[in-house]
Amino acid sequence: MKICHFSYHDATHWGAVKKDLIFPLEDLESLPENDGKKRLTESIEIEKVKLLPPTKPSKIVCVGRNYAEHAAELGNEIPKEPLLFFKAPSSLISEGEIIIIPEQSAQVEHEGELAVVIGRNCKNLKDADNPFDYVFGYMCLNDVTARDLQRKDGQFARAKSFDTFCPIGAFIETDLDASDIRLTTKVNGAIKQDGRTSQMIFPIQFLIRYISRQMTLNAGDIIATGTPSGVSKLTSGDVCEVEIEGIGILSNPVV
Amino acid sequence: MKICHFSYHDATHWGAVKKDLIFPLEDLESLPENDGKKRLTESIEIEKVKLLPPTKPSKIVCVGRNYAEHAAELGNEIPKEPLLFFKAPSSLISEGEIIIIPEQSAQVEHEGELAVVIGRNCKNLKDADNPFDYVFGYMCLNDVTARDLQRKDGQFARAKSFDTFCPIGAFIETDLDASDIRLTTKVNGAIKQDGRTSQMIFPIQFLIRYISRQMTLNAGDIIATGTPSGVSKLTSGDVCEVEIEGIGILSNPVV
Repeated sequence: MKICHFSYHDATHWGAVKKDLIFPLEDLESLPENDGKKRLTESIEIEKVKLLPPTKPSKIVCVGRNYAEHAAELGNEIPKEPLLFFKAPSSLISEGEIIIIPEQSAQVEHEGELAVVIGRNCKNLKDADNPFDYVFGYMCLNDVTARDLQRKDGQFARAKSFDTFCPIGAFIETDLDASDIRLTTKVNGAIKQDGRTSQMIFPIQFLIRYISRQMTLNAGDIIATGTPSGVSKLTSGDVCEVEIEGIGILSNPVV
Repeated sequence: MKICHFSYHDATHWGAVKKDLIFPLEDLESLPENDGKKRLTESIEIEKVKLLPPTKPSKIVCVGRNYAEHAAELGNEIPKEPLLFFKAPSSLISEGEIIIIPEQSAQVEHEGELAVVIGRNCKNLKDADNPFDYVFGYMCLNDVTARDLQRKDGQFARAKSFDTFCPIGAFIETDLDASDIRLTTKVNGAIKQDGRTSQMIFPIQFLIRYISRQMTLNAGDIIATGTPSGVSKLTSGDVCEVEIEGIGILSNPVV
């Protein structure tokens, strides 16, 4: 099922997407923040609503250098353990919203990624636990990065957390085997990144288990699983699209 | 005024602290998450409540190497711009709760810090804006750090975000000139860190303005302003206290 979060007539709702229609859902226990004040009972054409980021995470945990060719293209070694960093939740935007290039950076780049949305709080998963029991679904994410500031700071936090630097959505796909699907990122229609999730150094189930042993993951939290090679600079006027097989396209203009 | 957040008879409340009494407050507009279902109308003895972290931030923005002697003791240069990183909100605990040493680390250290609590959303503050207009108050914070993992990872995110690694509180002091106050950290009663906020390389007003230009700060967000020299290892059985003049003491046992 494809899940979306949207606003319609001054209230926010969750919905299931089928083609061009949204079928309103009751409050989703797995995801917070449905105000639920005005229940919708009939389907709505998707073009009549404003799509919102489909989760409101307490944190966005990102995995650096999780595709060997991307680590190499930036001159980095392949890590022996997942390399974790955070993006600020204030950087989130939804499908169609504008990625704004800040004046501080002369080199803002796209990083198309598969994102895991956590569905149940999880901590210290054991080897016998099934990490997929804690997954709500998967979505497209663009880990927009000011590459020059990332190099200058050493720490990734600022370079990856400017407002608008984390487009997600538009939909969360809840029924998907994400172990070997194609992930492409296009700029103005031209393919820049083209990988498969099977190329991850640390696969999804490993990442969830590993991160749960470092910190509690809460329902709604996002794990950005890393980006394939082919990152490139974004400039004003570009349109950047992250497409993942079985999930859909996340498209954002750049200004 | 000293503000606290507490639970009492299965509901959470905000209160003003005077000596050993808490005077319940109406919902604070500046801080989210007062469930406000059961209003209290009379004062309560502080020992009868469970103190909670006094803010629920959407992010915890930390400033690295903001005291010259601390930068030097870890062999780092003084930064030319504030060095930003994040702690996960899942690492928050309140006064009196236990700091748990994870098995992954053999060197967990305290970092006592002055924390700024943001009171109004702020973005792109201009030179003419007064950053203090956006401050709700100040509190003690212990930026607990797995020093060995911090060195190993390069990125600070994991080493500083284990559950229980961010004690805050117990109180937010809303009326304070924090520009030159004493900040000490004790382990088992012995002073380990002893500095003054006037020793910050980038002072409070500079930090708020600077960070607001990198990302939107939301009401309730925390800025941890850096730690003086004297960090040292914590071991099971220790009690670590962060004391700030005019604010109070944040005390946490270590297990």
